[in-house]
Amino acid sequence: MLGRYSFEAHMFKKAIDTAQPIHDLLASRWSGRAFDPTRPVERGKLTAMLEAARWAPSCYGDQPWRFIVWEKARDEAGWRRALDCLAAGNKPWARQAPLLMLACADSVLTHDGSPNRWGQYDTGAAAISLALQAAAQGLMVHQMGGFDSDRARREFRIPDRYTPMAMIAAGYQLPEHAIPAELREREYAPRARRPLTEIFFQSTWGRGIHVS
Amino acid sequence: MLGRYSFEAHMFKKAIDTAQPIHDLLASRWSGRAFDPTRPVERGKLTAMLEAARWAPSCYGDQPWRFIVWEKARDEAGWRRALDCLAAGNKPWARQAPLLMLACADSVLTHDGSPNRWGQYDTGAAAISLALQAAAQGLMVHQMGGFDSDRARREFRIPDRYTPMAMIAAGYQLPEHAIPAELREREYAPRARRPLTEIFFQSTWGRGIHVS
Repeated sequence: MLGRYSFEAHMFKKAIDTAQPIHDLLASRWSGRAFDPTRPVERGKLTAMLEAARWAPSCYGDQPWRFIVWEKARDEAGWRRALDCLAAGNKPWARQAPLLMLACADSVLTHDGSPNRWGQYDTGAAAISLALQAAAQGLMVHQMGGFDSDRARREFRIPDRYTPMAMIAAGYQLPEHAIPAELREREYAPRARRPLTEIFFQSTWGRGIHVS
Repeated sequence: MLGRYSFEAHMFKKAIDTAQPIHDLLASRWSGRAFDPTRPVERGKLTAMLEAARWAPSCYGDQPWRFIVWEKARDEAGWRRALDCLAAGNKPWARQAPLLMLACADSVLTHDGSPNRWGQYDTGAAAISLALQAAAQGLMVHQMGGFDSDRARREFRIPDRYTPMAMIAAGYQLPEHAIPAELREREYAPRARRPLTEIFFQSTWGRGIHVS
């Protein structure tokens, strides 16, 4: 049995097929590109997004994530330097986002200075928590692996022990009638994932899970 | 201004302090240890947890996460082999969990076979999505870095390209009166995190964010 969902809030509908219903917040998050450049993210909403990341779980409670935040309305020069780190394919749409962030992962455990092999794993959890809080507030978040990590490190003097993982664009979605033609196809493309049985295994590697 | 929350559902209350309110689902998830061994996780709820992980975002849409699932009620021998991989400190409480899982991260991108530097980051996002769906269903999830990764790889024939990241215990929480004395202190310990300004930076590395 398929549960078919669609969501509105400030965003237009985007359906997913699931074998069992999942919580609206998890189902409604998706990575759009059509940001509204005229609507900055309110400070209270930004703070809530950071709080969501802050309360993610981590190995040894280390909280290995660090985020740099650039708000166009507050520091356009800094925001532009961040934008300039993006891959060419991401710039045209990401430059419409009023808020850019960079998620970095600590490679060292604070309590004893040993390598933290969960630094990136835990940082990914913090970043999606931020994205979910954004979705709960009618905002859209799009994470990007496509950026010049070395340049970001130089530009923003990121210490060696931290690894820049993802640039994050955030803001409000454009109203549907204003979505530019060149983004339309990607914005309306159906969301898709591999089948459950291909990535979730029952007791043994490679044996697809029994789905109810 | 602090927003102070507390939650019940099937779990007892656990408060967090945030500078701005965050979504109940994000605020209510926490990593308890007092599992009820008499209540298996229903198959539909398990499927929903896996669906939540499945719909997490990933770089290039690669979906680098793989999960092995052991249900005590369905395959006690397999569940026990998974339990035996845990660190000594985790076994006493994790053996009460009816459901164990292992999150693994692909180190290679499917589309071109090149290294996937976001494999662990994306897998962390999938795993917390699973934990959030669990919380939405009145279940508790506790991820563990403390396990013998090499042993898990051997026991379950995990291919070299995948990295075992976290063992995950899941189940229902014990009713409060039944929480054993040796777990009480940890179960009731206040949740705590570093200050926002220590991990979220405004435009420049190390400059604490301006909080509303």
